[in-house]
Amino acid sequence: MSEIEVFRPEPRAPRGFQDRRAADLALERDILAKVSRVYELFGFEALDTSAFEYADALGKFLPDSERPNEGVFALQDDDEQWMALRYDLTAPLARFAAQHAGLLTKPFRRYAYGPVWRNEKPGPGRFREFIQCDADTVGSARPEADAEIIALAVAGLEAAGLPKTAAVLKINNRKLLNGLLKRIGVDHDGQKLAVLRAVDKLDRLGVEGVKLLLGAGRRDESGAFTKGAELNANGIDAVLAYLGAGATGRSATLAKLADVVGGSEEGEAGLRDLDRIGTALTGLGVDEARAFFDPSVVRGLEYYTGAVFEAELVGEVRDAHGDLVRFGSIGGGGRYDDLVARFTGEVTPATGFSFGVSRLAAALKASGSATLPKVRGPVVVIAFSEADMGHYFTVAAELRQAGIPAEVYLGGSGMKAQMKYADRRLSPAVVLLGGDEIAAGTVTIKDLDLGRALSEGVESNEAWRAARPGQATVPRAELVAFVKRILEG
Amino acid sequence: MSEIEVFRPEPRAPRGFQDRRAADLALERDILAKVSRVYELFGFEALDTSAFEYADALGKFLPDSERPNEGVFALQDDDEQWMALRYDLTAPLARFAAQHAGLLTKPFRRYAYGPVWRNEKPGPGRFREFIQCDADTVGSARPEADAEIIALAVAGLEAAGLPKTAAVLKINNRKLLNGLLKRIGVDHDGQKLAVLRAVDKLDRLGVEGVKLLLGAGRRDESGAFTKGAELNANGIDAVLAYLGAGATGRSATLAKLADVVGGSEEGEAGLRDLDRIGTALTGLGVDEARAFFDPSVVRGLEYYTGAVFEAELVGEVRDAHGDLVRFGSIGGGGRYDDLVARFTGEVTPATGFSFGVSRLAAALKASGSATLPKVRGPVVVIAFSEADMGHYFTVAAELRQAGIPAEVYLGGSGMKAQMKYADRRLSPAVVLLGGDEIAAGTVTIKDLDLGRALSEGVESNEAWRAARPGQATVPRAELVAFVKRILEG
Repeated sequence: MSEIEVFRPEPRAPRGFQDRRAADLALERDILAKVSRVYELFGFEALDTSAFEYADALGKFLPDSERPNEGVFALQDDDEQWMALRYDLTAPLARFAAQHAGLLTKPFRRYAYGPVWRNEKPGPGRFREFIQCDADTVGSARPEADAEIIALAVAGLEAAGLPKTAAVLKINNRKLLNGLLKRIGVDHDGQKLAVLRAVDKLDRLGVEGVKLLLGAGRRDESGAFTKGAELNANGIDAVLAYLGAGATGRSATLAKLADVVGGSEEGEAGLRDLDRIGTALTGLGVDEARAFFDPSVVRGLEYYTGAVFEAELVGEVRDAHGDLVRFGSIGGGGRYDDLVARFTGEVTPATGFSFGVSRLAAALKASGSATLPKVRGPVVVIAFSEADMGHYFTVAAELRQAGIPAEVYLGGSGMKAQMKYADRRLSPAVVLLGGDEIAAGTVTIKDLDLGRALSEGVESNEAWRAARPGQATVPRAELVAFVKRILEG
Repeated sequence: MSEIEVFRPEPRAPRGFQDRRAADLALERDILAKVSRVYELFGFEALDTSAFEYADALGKFLPDSERPNEGVFALQDDDEQWMALRYDLTAPLARFAAQHAGLLTKPFRRYAYGPVWRNEKPGPGRFREFIQCDADTVGSARPEADAEIIALAVAGLEAAGLPKTAAVLKINNRKLLNGLLKRIGVDHDGQKLAVLRAVDKLDRLGVEGVKLLLGAGRRDESGAFTKGAELNANGIDAVLAYLGAGATGRSATLAKLADVVGGSEEGEAGLRDLDRIGTALTGLGVDEARAFFDPSVVRGLEYYTGAVFEAELVGEVRDAHGDLVRFGSIGGGGRYDDLVARFTGEVTPATGFSFGVSRLAAALKASGSATLPKVRGPVVVIAFSEADMGHYFTVAAELRQAGIPAEVYLGGSGMKAQMKYADRRLSPAVVLLGGDEIAAGTVTIKDLDLGRALSEGVESNEAWRAARPGQATVPRAELVAFVKRILEG
């Protein structure tokens, strides 16, 4: 008889997708719970839309993508309609707000979190599925609605664990540069886009690099040439003056900006919006050092129509090897007054903020603001004998009843392997219940935390040994109290 | 100039997908938090896999489906590999356990929750995306591992809010019927499947219906004929005796079952497994009335190899109209010793339980065990004047600081619409801060809860009016205390 060939698939997660284990999940859930509480405190209510949207509802707003189905995971339904997995949480909100336009109490303040999917080339630390957390207000044209979103972002990041000084919110308004460009005669979209692209590179190339890109163009170290926006000298000066208008304090920045963009209608409107945002932020108690106006903020997404904001980590972050880590933006948002109108044809002002939960978690870890929560294993009841399993389970149930995670070892291995299992799972203790103990109504408890502390040299041998015995046999009635003492350290 | 034709997509969620709002999400999150706590108490750790798996890793275990890509949402990746959205949480766990077979501390006890997707025909209450919550043990062949899963299911459902008497766990073992069928000479898969299908219909057709389906077949009311399993009279009697072997108490049922399936090797093995499950359940303190052996439990999924269990609601549940609602199974699971071996070729015993979170939420609501959490709106600060916005925000910030959800009204409407907004959002109160109040350092607070209670006739006018004024002007310093009194009812 010949053996039948059996197909064995290779066990692997798809490219660009990851499994996450307990410690990472604990941190992420902690962030989401705390941020949700803050969002509810600001009067935002939870909404969950499904993973799929019709492709036409998603539109073409995915960054770096001009075609509707590019960059998303799309498939055709039985009825031939194209569906795609959401690439952010804003597009589904716009669809929801349009769908229920007549019935929704407005302003509609909603928050949401959940996975989004991008069909992009995966790379190190670059995943095709990640968790976003958003808050948006639909139906308010007031600049104060932007201010609330900014205050919410500040409060949310702080609640998540970022120290007050670790992140800043940079605020700008698209209308400023629009007004300025109109004034200096930039009136076709291609040139405008080239200016925006140049401005967006200020961080990376500095003023001199931007100056070249605003003019004829720039050749980089590799010799590659990037064509510039071809502004004349006056135009270049105006844009550079605009970029240099940042000052200490929101009012001081506005005054400097007024010198540069004043006189253009759109620019003046942008200044008025920012002024009202500043007043509201002051009322809300948001510090000038934490949320300030920065004319260089552009934000990539085409759909922004007014205020834009970006949350950035401050200061240098070094990883475990001492190497510098650049996190850049950990979140951002802005006003998008045209997104709901795509469906309804009626202007519906909206503004919101979004942050990447894994990115924030990574930032928290890297900045030393959060260590991964230590995921403790359960107390392990050692399984000596088949016949006594019922007794072991009674002990486990007793511990659980007292709120102490516990389990009976259920593998097939002997004593030594069971101790190793408990150690690997970071169990605080094991419970030994041999025939003698059962007969005498006692239990033996081995303190694994002590063993770990001693082996790590955390505590001096004598000090701890005096306070807690490494192993003790106690009456069954004292089991819970004994284990609690170990857990309390 | 002619108007440009603008494409306006219809705002709608894709067929079979739903949006969920705050009240439903609050209940669902409450369930998941409580169940997670119980699972961790049992020593299970969290794991999250991504939405996608390679299609070959998912296999063909989807119910009602024989072909790999049927019933799932699948698409081809850039590198031409087929990926599919997970249809349950078991298949990804099997892939994960196989992928990390060498390094994983075993037994590996993990829990998981999240959306799963089924590409099936949607219908009323039948969605193509829903939330499952699973707990599984990989790497233990012991029947006690099944018992732990059963105890966990019982404890989890109770923690979620189901009263002790509202649900039962029915337990069976595939080996019993396998052994019996072997003994009565059923040895080809087609006939075996026909018997399983007949047994599975006991609930719906009763003993007489099952008897027909075990024999020649059955004609239903519509005249349609279902071919039977064509057992002879002895065979039919044996299967019916097996189905009738339930008794009060786990030991009594086992004794009756021993009479029916005893003598067959596989049947005896099944009895021994159930006996050990029973002993462990007793040790764990799981009541005989809540988790009992029921020979009629089949469970559809082909991959089960031993113990199977099903959680069912007890008693009649009536909806708001007084109509009877059948929930049937609200969860289930069993032992699947071959699933990891699909990848590795090495037997890796595993057992687990899964429940549908939305289904449980619906059951909780229908059984009156849970009412939807009332999602309160924030305290609304009325916006009278553009110039005073800063003051309004200061008040909102003050309330938030005290842990009271609050917001400034940011729409464009007048006083009456603002009051309606606060009422629609179930706000407990509105804060009025006119020019006089600002000058005098006071605030006026309007108690909306009182208004609601009075209009619902919940409270007599006099009693409440005496205790709480409907509206009061108080010094700013007393704002928080006043609102807190309203919130405390």
